[in-house]
Amino acid sequence: MGSPSDERPLGEFELIDRYFTRSGAAAARPDVVLGIGDDAAVLRLPENTDLVAAVDTLVEGRHFPQGSTPRSIGHRALAVNLSDLAAMGATPRWATLALTLPCADAGWLEEFSAGLDRLAESHGVALVGGDTTAGPMTISLQLLGHVARDGVLRRSGARAGDVLAVTGTLGDAGAGLRLLMGDLLARDAAIAAELIERFEYPAPRVAFGASARRIASAAMDLSDGLAGDLPKLCAASGVAACVDVARLPLSRALQASVPPSEARDLALSAGDDYELLIAAPPGRFDELAQIARQLNLTFTAIGEVRQGSGVAWVLGERPFDTRVRGYDHFR
Amino acid sequence: MGSPSDERPLGEFELIDRYFTRSGAAAARPDVVLGIGDDAAVLRLPENTDLVAAVDTLVEGRHFPQGSTPRSIGHRALAVNLSDLAAMGATPRWATLALTLPCADAGWLEEFSAGLDRLAESHGVALVGGDTTAGPMTISLQLLGHVARDGVLRRSGARAGDVLAVTGTLGDAGAGLRLLMGDLLARDAAIAAELIERFEYPAPRVAFGASARRIASAAMDLSDGLAGDLPKLCAASGVAACVDVARLPLSRALQASVPPSEARDLALSAGDDYELLIAAPPGRFDELAQIARQLNLTFTAIGEVRQGSGVAWVLGERPFDTRVRGYDHFR
Repeated sequence: MGSPSDERPLGEFELIDRYFTRSGAAAARPDVVLGIGDDAAVLRLPENTDLVAAVDTLVEGRHFPQGSTPRSIGHRALAVNLSDLAAMGATPRWATLALTLPCADAGWLEEFSAGLDRLAESHGVALVGGDTTAGPMTISLQLLGHVARDGVLRRSGARAGDVLAVTGTLGDAGAGLRLLMGDLLARDAAIAAELIERFEYPAPRVAFGASARRIASAAMDLSDGLAGDLPKLCAASGVAACVDVARLPLSRALQASVPPSEARDLALSAGDDYELLIAAPPGRFDELAQIARQLNLTFTAIGEVRQGSGVAWVLGERPFDTRVRGYDHFR
Repeated sequence: MGSPSDERPLGEFELIDRYFTRSGAAAARPDVVLGIGDDAAVLRLPENTDLVAAVDTLVEGRHFPQGSTPRSIGHRALAVNLSDLAAMGATPRWATLALTLPCADAGWLEEFSAGLDRLAESHGVALVGGDTTAGPMTISLQLLGHVARDGVLRRSGARAGDVLAVTGTLGDAGAGLRLLMGDLLARDAAIAAELIERFEYPAPRVAFGASARRIASAAMDLSDGLAGDLPKLCAASGVAACVDVARLPLSRALQASVPPSEARDLALSAGDDYELLIAAPPGRFDELAQIARQLNLTFTAIGEVRQGSGVAWVLGERPFDTRVRGYDHFR
């Protein structure tokens, strides 16, 4: 579709060349047989591995506020997918990017690609292809990686008696987003910055997932909030769960910023944490806790897996009405 | 982002369940270790193959007219990527879909997925993952497949002396789009329907590409129009080309619908044909032509590859000013 024109301030192809093919690293890697510049990328997996593929889309005003810093958007576009691969215990290797933008703004692209590149480099991910189109801002990133055959960590492996645990702290990104949106007022600038950082620059738990792969029973990443995500893990595994919300790991920054009940609500219902939810046999919990310590990460038991279906939430001894659920994009 | 609500006409997860996990075929395939329903898909490549990955985005009003039939949109979302894999000589196997829609319209989704499923089944492609979000209509499909190691067909392989040829006929989809948009008036309803069909339901040349893989020097798919795409193949191969526009294959339907000069312009500049542009040693042309015949496809020599750079267009004996170029999305 479209017709010729003589006005051509910054063409699609120049744009792609300028921002997304500069990394000579991809071309030099033996696992990138053919990178950007042909009709498709050609990639080589190690022997005895399976391919792992995830895709996640960020839409402006939906997954990030309008006017978000492009560096954060670039970071998050990759981070949300890295988190999916972390939950499989997979090793991320290659990404393709479908970038729809209202206009080709060089400054925006510079910052966006800087945010994406930095996280990609720190995880050894090469950008090997993409598609750039004009339209409402929509960023879809596909992440590819590999995992040893028959060694993948699934959602469906939780068994009655397993401990349920989470990495890191919950609710921080939710508070950070509220601060960004002006729905929460900062009491302390440094604390507010810490929470906003958790929303803008989540740290996917790739190393933890890879190490937990042969120890844990099941895993999933917390993108939509624990109250929405845990029932999915239970359904996939055909089990029930009981969680004590008093045990949810809350950061000092979160506790300093909102009353206890609100901190709990954020930890349960706000998305964007990108921590891992893990089920593991009780006898293997200490191994996982030690792996977490080595990664300078907290690892907190929050409940247990039971026979049956559904999730029972308690606060200490008493039932707790969550009245919240995971984020549903077509609500 | 987002907050709870009690209104929930058709939730994201039900929507995905209903339309994109119904194909039991994916679960039953040995090359789909884990399909939709976990944090990522797990896929198994055959021995001694490389992974081939493509991604293409369709934006409403940009890649298809507003109000396009959803069945055609579903077909085209996959077809444009199948065409990329065809140009590599690769075998398509798996797709993931990033679907951004303004609302979850069951009728629309039913038709969209029917269009996608039908083409997927005919090419043995399993939908193994995806992400559904609310927002302006943007459809990004990632197609994964494989190719024998060191057997991939590249853009960069054209050599001076090669014949340049194309599959099928050019310009039909461009005329079909103009008919759809009301920019071209139908003289004959059956002929108009034929051209519109070429825009709405392009037939990617996957079988031809796979067979041409060890014969042709270079290939790329014609998505942006020959006048825009051929210079890219030349640049990738470090060669020049000369094309006689009098030799461009034009369908009877196109010739019956527009004057000769306009048919030529459409064949050169309109995108959306998804035919293959091939460079091959002259001594191998007949082999390719025979493969095409077996596939009931025309295969037409249009020019030759030369030393140097750039493309010389001629009409018979005289230079021809194309004054057109490929479609650039940020023009």
